[in-house]
Amino acid sequence: MADEGRFDLKAYLSDKRTVVDGALRAWFPEPEGLVSDLIAAMKYSLFAGGKRLRPILCIAGCEAVGGTQEDVIAVACSLELIHTYSLIHDDLPLMDDDDFRRGKPTNHKVFGDAIALLAGDGLLTEAFRMMTTKEISERVSPVVLVKAVQMISLAAGCDGMVGGQVVDIQSEGKEPDFEIVKYMHARKTGALITASVTAGAVLAEAGENAISLIHSFGEKAGLAFQIADDILDIEGDSEILGKQVGADQNKGKMTYPAVLGLDESKRIQSDLIQSAIGDLSEFGSNAEPLRQIARYIIERKK
Amino acid sequence: MADEGRFDLKAYLSDKRTVVDGALRAWFPEPEGLVSDLIAAMKYSLFAGGKRLRPILCIAGCEAVGGTQEDVIAVACSLELIHTYSLIHDDLPLMDDDDFRRGKPTNHKVFGDAIALLAGDGLLTEAFRMMTTKEISERVSPVVLVKAVQMISLAAGCDGMVGGQVVDIQSEGKEPDFEIVKYMHARKTGALITASVTAGAVLAEAGENAISLIHSFGEKAGLAFQIADDILDIEGDSEILGKQVGADQNKGKMTYPAVLGLDESKRIQSDLIQSAIGDLSEFGSNAEPLRQIARYIIERKK
Repeated sequence: MADEGRFDLKAYLSDKRTVVDGALRAWFPEPEGLVSDLIAAMKYSLFAGGKRLRPILCIAGCEAVGGTQEDVIAVACSLELIHTYSLIHDDLPLMDDDDFRRGKPTNHKVFGDAIALLAGDGLLTEAFRMMTTKEISERVSPVVLVKAVQMISLAAGCDGMVGGQVVDIQSEGKEPDFEIVKYMHARKTGALITASVTAGAVLAEAGENAISLIHSFGEKAGLAFQIADDILDIEGDSEILGKQVGADQNKGKMTYPAVLGLDESKRIQSDLIQSAIGDLSEFGSNAEPLRQIARYIIERKK
Repeated sequence: MADEGRFDLKAYLSDKRTVVDGALRAWFPEPEGLVSDLIAAMKYSLFAGGKRLRPILCIAGCEAVGGTQEDVIAVACSLELIHTYSLIHDDLPLMDDDDFRRGKPTNHKVFGDAIALLAGDGLLTEAFRMMTTKEISERVSPVVLVKAVQMISLAAGCDGMVGGQVVDIQSEGKEPDFEIVKYMHARKTGALITASVTAGAVLAEAGENAISLIHSFGEKAGLAFQIADDILDIEGDSEILGKQVGADQNKGKMTYPAVLGLDESKRIQSDLIQSAIGDLSEFGSNAEPLRQIARYIIERKK
């Protein structure tokens, strides 16, 4: 990782994914007993082929400021639980009513609506248990741990992901409006991505200035990520994506391309990533994973 | 409070309810902007006339071991957010499909299913933000704060409230079974009540033995509370309850009376409360509120 020229993003992502998957598997018991369906439903969506972007960003954010992976792995994994819960609830018939996600039937299609709802509730709650175990609070200072919990709950809640979801469903079919789509994207996807990378730096006990730079990087990368999602919904390959292309337009979703057009959306996402990378200049080679992930965010095919 | 003979439970509950309501109102902004419906939906259920039992138990648990209310008020209030989210999700058409709660239309009847779902998600997430603010972590030791978050998330999650809910819906219409109903009640209602009173003692930095006694009290009081709910569904007054009596039986819910009969259920709840009060003997007059709340739990009419 130290040698910029030879940094291999593919190997890095694959390595980190293996670590995250291992930690997630170790956390969850085999489904058995009276709550076996609940455990099975949670694990079904958690191990449905996610990119583990949020956990990896958390680890990379930690490493960028000189921290070590072991200190943040639990918090990193908890971010994937929060992300997964949001997908399960989003897909429910009373929300987006989606039948497929990552090429597989959605949670409620397999386990029924009630178990899917509760699997989402369980994952969200479990995330906060995962980030506050005795093991972690012996590893990192409880002061920064409390800060990380605060930051993540803020990003996942009403002024973050949940708020973004509300705006998302309420803006469906409405006249495109740049202020609304910007507000929505920053919260729906941007907030948790920002919190992921920033929590990594906070847990590594970085200084205020470093945390603020990482936060700024996260905001830009997070927004670019959602714009890239919007673009993939138009230009992507539905087989690679594992879901139907054109779904946003069919549902009358407010997206960057719907508001600004494809070309302008691409220009903005590219500017965002360039600026995000600029925020990392003082971190040297430690931040090379973050730089490459930022580029990957807008170049990915799924 | 120091004088056992003259302790006035009604005044105590009313005082604490005022404090809790004030803190809750101060936390939530006026509904406005793009997420005004979300804020309005969260506040609708949060201020729909709840007893504030969990926050009051948290405060009383803290005071029983010599702590002060100011140190736990935020965590106490966060427990009401968690309780409220669980009610909103429970009432959804895909779960219990209830139209009324505390004499008022349920959340989804007023705001629609999607906003109700997200209001529940928002309240659950907000609870963890509320218990980890800068103000609290400057007031209580971050070490015990992390312990409290851990304890509450465990009680609210898969091995607690969410798990109990799963067993609840999956046992509907099935052959009554004592082991199942005991498992279910301990988790569905008991776990969060236990965590409420125990978190109060933990945040007051009580010793291990005291925490263990308060925890034991909570387990018994929590189970008795749910049995009392079961009994009220048979013998209660629907006007006082604010919901239809006999709903459990109509839905084929597994309850203590359904499994053991009314008389045996009453005997068990009475034994539980007596034993719970026995756990408090070493706390003297500081624990008088807890003792009286325990009695109130099985004598209440709603």
